[in-house]
Amino acid sequence: MPSTKGDVPLISPAQNGLAAENFIHQSMAIIMEDAVKKATDVREKVCEWRSPEQLKELLDLELRDGGESESKILQRCRDAIRYSVKTTHPHFFNQLYAGMEPYSLVASFIVEALKPSLYTYEVAPVFTLMEDAVLRKMIEMIGWEEGGDGIFNAGGSMSNMYAVNLARYHHFPDIKEAGLSAVPRLVMFTSQECHYSISKAAALMGIGTKNVYMVPSDNRGKMIPSALELLIKTAKSEGAVPFMVNATAGTTVLGAFDPIQEIADICEKYNLWLHVDVSAFIQSFIHSFASINLIPLSVANSVAWNPHKMLMACLQCSAFLVRDKTNLLQRCHSSSASYLFQQDKFYDVSYDTGDKSVQCSRKPDAFKFWLMWKALGTGELEERVDRALATARSPEYANVCFWYSPPSLRNLPDGPELWKKLHTVAPVVKERMMKKGSMMVGYQPHRDKANFFRMIVISPQASRLDMDFVLDEIHNLGKDL
Amino acid sequence: MPSTKGDVPLISPAQNGLAAENFIHQSMAIIMEDAVKKATDVREKVCEWRSPEQLKELLDLELRDGGESESKILQRCRDAIRYSVKTTHPHFFNQLYAGMEPYSLVASFIVEALKPSLYTYEVAPVFTLMEDAVLRKMIEMIGWEEGGDGIFNAGGSMSNMYAVNLARYHHFPDIKEAGLSAVPRLVMFTSQECHYSISKAAALMGIGTKNVYMVPSDNRGKMIPSALELLIKTAKSEGAVPFMVNATAGTTVLGAFDPIQEIADICEKYNLWLHVDVSAFIQSFIHSFASINLIPLSVANSVAWNPHKMLMACLQCSAFLVRDKTNLLQRCHSSSASYLFQQDKFYDVSYDTGDKSVQCSRKPDAFKFWLMWKALGTGELEERVDRALATARSPEYANVCFWYSPPSLRNLPDGPELWKKLHTVAPVVKERMMKKGSMMVGYQPHRDKANFFRMIVISPQASRLDMDFVLDEIHNLGKDL
Repeated sequence: MPSTKGDVPLISPAQNGLAAENFIHQSMAIIMEDAVKKATDVREKVCEWRSPEQLKELLDLELRDGGESESKILQRCRDAIRYSVKTTHPHFFNQLYAGMEPYSLVASFIVEALKPSLYTYEVAPVFTLMEDAVLRKMIEMIGWEEGGDGIFNAGGSMSNMYAVNLARYHHFPDIKEAGLSAVPRLVMFTSQECHYSISKAAALMGIGTKNVYMVPSDNRGKMIPSALELLIKTAKSEGAVPFMVNATAGTTVLGAFDPIQEIADICEKYNLWLHVDVSAFIQSFIHSFASINLIPLSVANSVAWNPHKMLMACLQCSAFLVRDKTNLLQRCHSSSASYLFQQDKFYDVSYDTGDKSVQCSRKPDAFKFWLMWKALGTGELEERVDRALATARSPEYANVCFWYSPPSLRNLPDGPELWKKLHTVAPVVKERMMKKGSMMVGYQPHRDKANFFRMIVISPQASRLDMDFVLDEIHNLGKDL
Repeated sequence: MPSTKGDVPLISPAQNGLAAENFIHQSMAIIMEDAVKKATDVREKVCEWRSPEQLKELLDLELRDGGESESKILQRCRDAIRYSVKTTHPHFFNQLYAGMEPYSLVASFIVEALKPSLYTYEVAPVFTLMEDAVLRKMIEMIGWEEGGDGIFNAGGSMSNMYAVNLARYHHFPDIKEAGLSAVPRLVMFTSQECHYSISKAAALMGIGTKNVYMVPSDNRGKMIPSALELLIKTAKSEGAVPFMVNATAGTTVLGAFDPIQEIADICEKYNLWLHVDVSAFIQSFIHSFASINLIPLSVANSVAWNPHKMLMACLQCSAFLVRDKTNLLQRCHSSSASYLFQQDKFYDVSYDTGDKSVQCSRKPDAFKFWLMWKALGTGELEERVDRALATARSPEYANVCFWYSPPSLRNLPDGPELWKKLHTVAPVVKERMMKKGSMMVGYQPHRDKANFFRMIVISPQASRLDMDFVLDEIHNLGKDL
């Protein structure tokens, strides 16, 4: 079972190839006009806000027994684009990604059309080699002179998960087979400002969120090394086994950089794996800055690095990198499926990289980075980062966090009353900007701080004019509050 | 730090929008011609084989300081397409996906251009609602009359991982915080024919691969229920705690269906979570068959279902579904990041689904399924499955496993000598078909069976003529062996 119908006509293909091509051709024109040109046009709206109830009605979401005409489907494409947020618009500052990068976009289109999956060289020869080339270059830029290994995967959260798994496997290879119930309580360390994926990884991997010890950070959001050492000692005194530290280079909210070198020294002292989450940033391109504070990434055991953020590669483009030459990544994740990884193939099967992955099908995201890197060169990529940071004029990174104080609050004395009122301003301004569609900037509270705007400046399409626009617009939207 | 350059010009955008649009436009023409039309043309090659060494030279993979001209980049796009395997070609039978589905392809293009990420309604309103609509329809088709929950994710392996995590959380919610070191040894059960992602999940999640008890299956590859019950008793007698059973509806190699109802009865008796991995298949569309053996999916606690396989949605399109109305998915995975999931937003934040996910950025893959479903209707989707199964003429599923015996072996007596020789045939035929580029069919050994061809028939573009071609071609390529 299942049995099959006897009356299915098999003599010719079920699809009309020409009609399909014609449909794709027409769709491409719509995508070009609405999702590329209009979506990035500063004179157009960032979003056309509709409430969930309104939008459900507009989109007619129900899936039915019968199909619809091509013209109807083309209209559905237009509608999907129209009511979607234009994250590539110059006034989108809401997340840690932004802008339209034409080369990686074209690479994405090619990937979608070809439908490759990265597990064996035989089904994805081009993309296997490109991933390898990009990983090697990234490893070189990190500064691991003896090389390393890595894998592109479905996002920074997964990269961090890879790090936790490798750190654990490195210290306790038996856990892969025997599980955690056979070993003492493992403890890992990260700053309280780290990305939430670290805790998610600990929960998923059976380590437990309570065993992620949160190291205090200073007022700027940087991990305090002495506090880290204290916590390591605490864990040991409890009979637990510390195994890794996650340091963050560019925290999610404040954009702070943990002091990597000092943390690395502590890791060496206590034999802990050091993972650096630079998902938000890219150290390599800092080499070009006249900076005295290079991030010494080469001391890390592993690194999470997302070219889909400041480098603007299309979503998702996220690499996990590891300073290891003993095939740790494969040993930790392999299961040697016989239907994919036959050892009697006619080519060098070391090019079959699928057994390094926790996924089976895996998209060739490295191609998106490879093609834009080829087109722009390292030099232009560096300039992009310089430019975004200069536009943000941030002391640390591209996150600009600020309060907007409406005129009615400007003469209030500092105190709980003022902050309570200020806390309510950003949500209202955000609602108004969404409904007007003029821009998108995030807001949030943080520890004891009232709601503030958190504006991310990444896109090379954003200029000083756009920065002026944002400030004026926030004032226009909130001056009556 | 990092400090920024003082000389970056900020007054105008760094990108030339018109040039970018022009480049995308030219690329689209190449994609249409080479990656859509030629790639699906039966008269063209499935692949243009090059060894890794040859291909490295042809592609000039190195990433340099300087960028390249647009015409050079367009040529690189042509080359990437040319040397890639055409998985959408009618003679590609190598994996559990195939064919070109125009509607989901167009949906993919839209997604790439718009760069949405699914965590909050405010950044992905359209795709959030579409995912919800598709999940509801899938839940209805599974037959969970009281509803359920679900999430699209980065592949069937991740869906299976979600299942293991939910099953564990359902039985032992404290593990999320406290970790596994505080609880007895947990044991899960699956057949020896299951997908390798089950073991990968156990390794990653700290359960340990040894604690995945492999239930024997019969000659057709179906799990033997009495053997399952015996193993559950064994685990209990060892002091371990059984918590879930993974059943497979359409195994990876043989395409076998485990007896779900009998397994469900055992799960009920021992209070175990039942997950059904139908990644390869879709029960819903079996309702249309004049079959006496419907898969009773509604008895499952959770289901992994990949529309990117037999339904041909573009890679990746993979859903995890759970029969639960208590928000288990969110409670199990939530970390309540304040920068995304503010509770004082101006809309109903139950539409912010990001906290159900182990990922942060997540692609709106449901849209690819939604658009093709709208275009084709449930009826046409059913016909596709009927057709593929009829073309395969398989007793169970779309996997056709067979040996090719060259004339020289046909008169040999059955025995170790014959099988030793037969074992070497498929790898050579595979090498020859790759180098000729005429088709792609996988091969593998399985348990005590010598290397056999494993041909997957999914695409509606494949007809009886193509089946004849495959058999003739294998004979042509291997008759001298």
